[in-house]
Amino acid sequence: MKMQLLEDKIRAEGEIIGNDIVKVDMFLNHRIDVDLLCEIGKEFKRLFGDLGINKIVTIEASGIGIACVTAQYFSVPVVFAKKGFHRNVGNDIYSGEVFSFTKGITTQIGISKKYLTPDDRILIIDDFLANGGAVKGLIGLADQAGAKVMGVGICIEKGFQSGGKELREMGYRVESLAIIKSINDGKIVFG
Amino acid sequence: MKMQLLEDKIRAEGEIIGNDIVKVDMFLNHRIDVDLLCEIGKEFKRLFGDLGINKIVTIEASGIGIACVTAQYFSVPVVFAKKGFHRNVGNDIYSGEVFSFTKGITTQIGISKKYLTPDDRILIIDDFLANGGAVKGLIGLADQAGAKVMGVGICIEKGFQSGGKELREMGYRVESLAIIKSINDGKIVFG
Repeated sequence: MKMQLLEDKIRAEGEIIGNDIVKVDMFLNHRIDVDLLCEIGKEFKRLFGDLGINKIVTIEASGIGIACVTAQYFSVPVVFAKKGFHRNVGNDIYSGEVFSFTKGITTQIGISKKYLTPDDRILIIDDFLANGGAVKGLIGLADQAGAKVMGVGICIEKGFQSGGKELREMGYRVESLAIIKSINDGKIVFG
Repeated sequence: MKMQLLEDKIRAEGEIIGNDIVKVDMFLNHRIDVDLLCEIGKEFKRLFGDLGINKIVTIEASGIGIACVTAQYFSVPVVFAKKGFHRNVGNDIYSGEVFSFTKGITTQIGISKKYLTPDDRILIIDDFLANGGAVKGLIGLADQAGAKVMGVGICIEKGFQSGGKELREMGYRVESLAIIKSINDGKIVFG
């Protein structure tokens, strides 16, 4: 569900690099416009508010602020996956791998078993969706716990990469507040 | 300024390890109790609300949620220092080092020069204050920018370590919502 305020912000303050990268350090990833975050949180509540969600799950670092501000409107806790776990971390962690196409590296992620349970009906929140590595990694942790993934809320989806399409085809309800269809000659086309 | 709700939470859900570690993964550092975060944010607003603060500064990862929820009550943006910068990262980053006594490692931190300026009157927010490495690192970045550090808001201070005392002696206004004076035989004594 398109959110005009976010598209306007991306157009005004996003920094375009080549034909596939938009840096949003100015309001989402380094400096955080918290008023905007509140509007984003309310929009996620409007979109996912009727699904009985009892936990919001994200991944460090830039997902945490968005998840916490959003969680207020749901009155539910946040759990964030930590990065840099080792494969053999023991029996008390659900763990997995996230491959980042952008950075070309694989990162171990994990969530303590105490904080994901079969009773959970979770909403996954993240800032970006491109190839979907992070979201798929979080779904993997939820699956290990037997938690239900009720939805995936994304701020900015790169529609020209395959993550969103793949997740929707897998049956997940993915709502992206801004979908970038393409970047041509320094101009962003929203989908 | 002591916050009873937070002390009660630490007593009820904190996990004591030996005589110097309290893990608060259950509500602050991995799973996040966002209702509690809202109360923490309101308390910081009460304590620092009259200082003309125009930016909240923290460090990834666990400071981000607290900073974002707090920033709502101030209607100001958040800037978080990123970890893992290299020393020679270029001219567009204020950078410094944080030594963690707990982990025994030094981490490079940095903030883009665009997001800290001489006009800034900042509030530094963090989850823990022990030896003060992270807060001193953030003060170092603010100093490089010529930004004014108006206050330091901490959720949990370890009063038996030296960071809080040192920062107060340096003239900084440090407000910790819970101060752990000591941990004896599995019991926490608050200061």
